Amino acid sequence: MTDSAKRAVFIGRFQPLHLGHLNAFQHVLGRADEIIVVVGSAQYSHTTRNPFTAGERITMIRLALREGKVDAERYYIIPIRDLHIHKMWVAHVVSLTPDFSVVYSNEPLTSTLFREEGIKVEPIPFFDRNTYSSTEVRRRMLQDESWRDLLPSTVADYIEQIGGVERIRNVAQSDNPNEMKR
Amino acid sequence: MTDSAKRAVFIGRFQPLHLGHLNAFQHVLGRADEIIVVVGSAQYSHTTRNPFTAGERITMIRLALREGKVDAERYYIIPIRDLHIHKMWVAHVVSLTPDFSVVYSNEPLTSTLFREEGIKVEPIPFFDRNTYSSTEVRRRMLQDESWRDLLPSTVADYIEQIGGVERIRNVAQSDNPNEMKR
Amino acid sequence: MTDSAKRAVFIGRFQPLHLGHLNAFQHVLGRADEIIVVVGSAQYSHTTRNPFTAGERITMIRLALREGKVDAERYYIIPIRDLHIHKMWVAHVVSLTPDFSVVYSNEPLTSTLFREEGIKVEPIPFFDRNTYSSTEVRRRMLQDESWRDLLPSTVADYIEQIGGVERIRNVAQSDNPNEMKR
Amino acid sequence: MTDSAKRAVFIGRFQPLHLGHLNAFQHVLGRADEIIVVVGSAQYSHTTRNPFTAGERITMIRLALREGKVDAERYYIIPIRDLHIHKMWVAHVVSLTPDFSVVYSNEPLTSTLFREEGIKVEPIPFFDRNTYSSTEVRRRMLQDESWRDLLPSTVADYIEQIGGVERIRNVAQSDNPNEMKR
Amino acid sequence: MTDSAKRAVFIGRFQPLHLGHLNAFQHVLGRADEIIVVVGSAQYSHTTRNPFTAGERITMIRLALREGKVDAERYYIIPIRDLHIHKMWVAHVVSLTPDFSVVYSNEPLTSTLFREEGIKVEPIPFFDRNTYSSTEVRRRMLQDESWRDLLPSTVADYIEQIGGVERIRNVAQSDNPNEMKR
Amino acid sequence: MTDSAKRAVFIGRFQPLHLGHLNAFQHVLGRADEIIVVVGSAQYSHTTRNPFTAGERITMIRLALREGKVDAERYYIIPIRDLHIHKMWVAHVVSLTPDFSVVYSNEPLTSTLFREEGIKVEPIPFFDRNTYSSTEVRRRMLQDESWRDLLPSTVADYIEQIGGVERIRNVAQSDNPNEMKR
Repeated sequence: MTDSAKRAVFIGRFQPLHLGHLNAFQHVLGRADEIIVVVGSAQYSHTTRNPFTAGERITMIRLALREGKVDAERYYIIPIRDLHIHKMWVAHVVSLTPDFSVVYSNEPLTSTLFREEGIKVEPIPFFDRNTYSSTEVRRRMLQDESWRDLLPSTVADYIEQIGGVERIRNVAQSDNPNEMKR
Repeated sequence: MTDSAKRAVFIGRFQPLHLGHLNAFQHVLGRADEIIVVVGSAQYSHTTRNPFTAGERITMIRLALREGKVDAERYYIIPIRDLHIHKMWVAHVVSLTPDFSVVYSNEPLTSTLFREEGIKVEPIPFFDRNTYSSTEVRRRMLQDESWRDLLPSTVADYIEQIGGVERIRNVAQSDNPNEMKR
Repeated sequence: MTDSAKRAVFIGRFQPLHLGHLNAFQHVLGRADEIIVVVGSAQYSHTTRNPFTAGERITMIRLALREGKVDAERYYIIPIRDLHIHKMWVAHVVSLTPDFSVVYSNEPLTSTLFREEGIKVEPIPFFDRNTYSSTEVRRRMLQDESWRDLLPSTVADYIEQIGGVERIRNVAQSDNPNEMKR
Repeated sequence: MTDSAKRAVFIGRFQPLHLGHLNAFQHVLGRADEIIVVVGSAQYSHTTRNPFTAGERITMIRLALREGKVDAERYYIIPIRDLHIHKMWVAHVVSLTPDFSVVYSNEPLTSTLFREEGIKVEPIPFFDRNTYSSTEVRRRMLQDESWRDLLPSTVADYIEQIGGVERIRNVAQSDNPNEMKR
Repeated sequence: MTDSAKRAVFIGRFQPLHLGHLNAFQHVLGRADEIIVVVGSAQYSHTTRNPFTAGERITMIRLALREGKVDAERYYIIPIRDLHIHKMWVAHVVSLTPDFSVVYSNEPLTSTLFREEGIKVEPIPFFDRNTYSSTEVRRRMLQDESWRDLLPSTVADYIEQIGGVERIRNVAQSDNPNEMKR
Repeated sequence: MTDSAKRAVFIGRFQPLHLGHLNAFQHVLGRADEIIVVVGSAQYSHTTRNPFTAGERITMIRLALREGKVDAERYYIIPIRDLHIHKMWVAHVVSLTPDFSVVYSNEPLTSTLFREEGIKVEPIPFFDRNTYSSTEVRRRMLQDESWRDLLPSTVADYIEQIGGVERIRNVAQSDNPNEMKR
């Protein structure tokens, strides 16, 4: 027996995971045997742009895929830290993931980097992009607006369980302009 | 719904994975709801001690757990690089993993570090330790002795598929004494 | 004899040290046996936000504490570099400092990180915060306004001795927007 | 025979190289035996401020010096990555370059750092600075204005050959505000 | 008032601190106004060569100097991590320390590096070198021989308080040959 | 005009450069238009295995190629630091070098890594390998045997000019077993 599954990579920061992500996972799983979900910027947490740790984001992804009834045999969840050295990024991802043949991404930099290394990149249909965005979820959390309905309900429960909204409000008050952008 | 599974961490380098590892996974899964398999020294590959990349080792673990008929809902496979800064190692692992309550390990340094941070560590019964060891598997590969029967058969097939034995022999000829130890 | 002093940590960047810092040191020393002064962002210097090296900032703290007649037996001054990996920051500080039981801080991110690791955090009363701030001191230096009276006089002398005002003006002319924020 | 050439260092990012750079090289070569061209921020590429890799920038410098009929015996081209630790920058440059006695620079931070280490710094006459600037070249590339006449023609050809304009437009659409500034 | 003390640097790993170190501190303080004690290899701990954290070693130095009745106004204790990039080591030390004019060292590499940067290096008279050595102390701890009389008694007490001997024995059993050398 | 030269990469540490290296350069230049000489392990110096800085090694290579009457238009000399992350090494080299089509190497690890990325690797005929080796040159320097005739004479002169033999003897006396292997 050999390793011959057709695998696709999907890269996100999942700060936090929302229904648009789950929708994208299902789109990819309709086109590949297995999906490798890369949790990018894995080293960052506790900032307004990156409030959750990689471990927390892995938990969210697992909960969402379970809620979406996706067979766990069909996915991998792999945290990968930012190097900030773009020309080495693809080699970094390749070294940490099972063999794959396609990347699904709408991000122009990600697409450029993979294509320069000869790897196929496919777009993902948007799913009400302005509403289902992590930036919008964080904005609502900060401004005490309703955010739960943008997320799978088990993920929303988990964020409440770990005090995620309180954390995002605390770190937003930090006066360190450098850290806040990460 | 909350995240309340009892999770256990198991840390290895899996260079390569052998039947003793699979046996240990099953021991842990008899005592916890879910197992977090940490692929340590994730950044290293292509040396005599660390021939395989993290991506290849993740593939081996998935194949072994499938061969062992372990439900994929019950495990996480997470690559974590060495920092070589031991007092920060536990915080590094915690930041990259879902919440856990116990570590299974026989390694004295690993056990010391987790215990100093107040985390419970349990031993694992050995499974014919001298035979089922990655060092022994690599020695046999290098000396052209029989090694396949120490591994799950799908893992052995995978190693042959990626030319793993040829690779380990090539890197063993390197004249760089520094790299060979990693 | 054992190490049983009650120690408190105070973290700052001290760019530069001003009278508000000295006031805070004295507040903490009224509540603990010893204070561990952490010089944060230790690796940075020669930018508009971080003009002084860690060595220069250690010198300032020693001069200020001497001017404030604080017994040198009661404090430690320890430079610690930024990791930009927040979830590991507390372990990083712990590894580089003598044992402590409380952190004094008004910074929301610092407070959140220590509290998540189960360490007690206490606030510090503000001491005319808008005037006695490093940002205000640097602004006055750049705009050639009077700044000496915001600092302990030996610290002001030291900054003049090392050409600190000239340096801050030179680096402010740098056209590198990336560096200027650090 | 000993190594006794009078060498001068010139540091730039060359994103991309333009005629002002070539003019500066010739100014320096009128005052020193040899020039060491340091390609700064060597690790960065694929951002709007740093679109080209160090390898591509080394190629541009070689092409420009060839077009300018400068004898290759008279120059070195050395990529040096940013450390973001300014007080160690001069030691970093010194460790990676042949022995030199003077630095040519108009950049206030660079000048300050070398002067603090006791190294002589000389200014460079500006060559129509507002037009011949890498920022202006990148702006024209992004906005589809004419940019070729600001560059040596072989460098302009090379950028077209590697699809440089398309790359700069792709990465400018990236939604990662952090990366875009590097 | 200006910063005009004559300061001397003394660099050690202090794994652990012994009476030979205290003797050396007193030798240096007979020749300089102030001593800067650099705790080298600050990031390492929990190995057989480097069992103690930087924070623990700072505590030992403070206890020893107190026991030796040295005025705390006369010393600084500064942890500095290894870079493993020797040509930048002196700049690294300079950036993290108050201004100094001489280094006391018998270590050939340290002496070579400081002398190449034009900094004066003085030797230290040995104090029964074979007995009063950290290597000898660690050997005795591992082999359950008498070690307390090689250390200042408050330092010996402190090591027992933190379980230092048990730790060194635990990490010595680690099967990781790479880590054990650090 | 386009960049269409056929370029070959040659990677060495050059600790120090000897006549075997010069011979190899000439072999490669008989088969390619241009040679890219990569100075590997660029960050290391002042150890018994890596006594010279990258800047000193670049100087040696330039002197040797001049002595060998190689046209400077036909070569690049590029320092590249070790990452110790082998699976990313090829991407690291590619990012820092002009475009190339072949690597000349007899080193098994280097050859394996480039071949895995689909890059052609060619061997180099040995030139009295036991005598013309950097290890042998360093051994002779340490043991005060005759070493000059193994090197181009201008390189031997340069090493004497910078006190290279004295340096190698000093660092060999260092008692740090970890550093000595780098």
